[in-house]
Amino acid sequence: MEFTCSPIGVIRTGYPTKESAPIQGFFHPDAVGTVEVAAEFAEGLLDIELFSHLILVYHFDRAAQVELVRRPFLDDTPHGVFATRHPCRPSGIGLSVVKLLGRDGDTLRVGGIDVLDGTPLLDIKPYVTRFDCFPEASEGWFAGKEKRDKPAGRE
Amino acid sequence: MEFTCSPIGVIRTGYPTKESAPIQGFFHPDAVGTVEVAAEFAEGLLDIELFSHLILVYHFDRAAQVELVRRPFLDDTPHGVFATRHPCRPSGIGLSVVKLLGRDGDTLRVGGIDVLDGTPLLDIKPYVTRFDCFPEASEGWFAGKEKRDKPAGRE
Repeated sequence: MEFTCSPIGVIRTGYPTKESAPIQGFFHPDAVGTVEVAAEFAEGLLDIELFSHLILVYHFDRAAQVELVRRPFLDDTPHGVFATRHPCRPSGIGLSVVKLLGRDGDTLRVGGIDVLDGTPLLDIKPYVTRFDCFPEASEGWFAGKEKRDKPAGRE
Repeated sequence: MEFTCSPIGVIRTGYPTKESAPIQGFFHPDAVGTVEVAAEFAEGLLDIELFSHLILVYHFDRAAQVELVRRPFLDDTPHGVFATRHPCRPSGIGLSVVKLLGRDGDTLRVGGIDVLDGTPLLDIKPYVTRFDCFPEASEGWFAGKEKRDKPAGRE
């Protein structure tokens, strides 16, 4: 049974192409973008400015073919797609925790954003440390992986 | 432009009805459930057991009508839906960070799960502290809100 929803807005960044986008917002805390919420959903932003961090849920609308096992950007060993944050995944759904820098009407200014310019926004959720912050979590194969450029030719 | 994807599996919990489900998994760390990944996607689980925590993305398939501003379960003041984790939201997409307790083939045993039994699973992502853990985040209106029962009659 298919799942369907409509975007609530769009994410604007300085990354128009896959080649220009960073691998993870974490590595680029200074990357600032805007989240433009469509007028019909703007009322749902009430009190959003009480939060310092937000979870953006969006559609990887320019992702290439899904492969269930592949080498991610940060490692040269293949992993299952559900053990990676790779954009080419069966759901096509991405999520990022970003810093809320400010609000101007229906537009939010956010920091640490790594998505492509024009990415369809599906949802915004408040980041709540008690629900979302688990400092004791293991980092799996991400442990010790440092920022690097996307390996050439790797989707 | 509508967004469409197909579930990759189903989440099984001890909560068959809205009345029986807890408000947040955080408040119920002992609530254990299983995540059953469909056979056609199971290969994507390779190396999932390297991670202690996972982000489950799912469809609030039994949510009631969307209201852009409403009183959430944990507060008696109305907030915009994007400043709450309420299940009745335009996207219909939910997400929870859960603890990975074990894996048995295509089935994962997880802790701290608060969704309804039979919830369609859209995606699994590894929880990575550097990307997802922000202890300095403000809790907005959630600050100081303690576990309580769902207020009577509130959807």
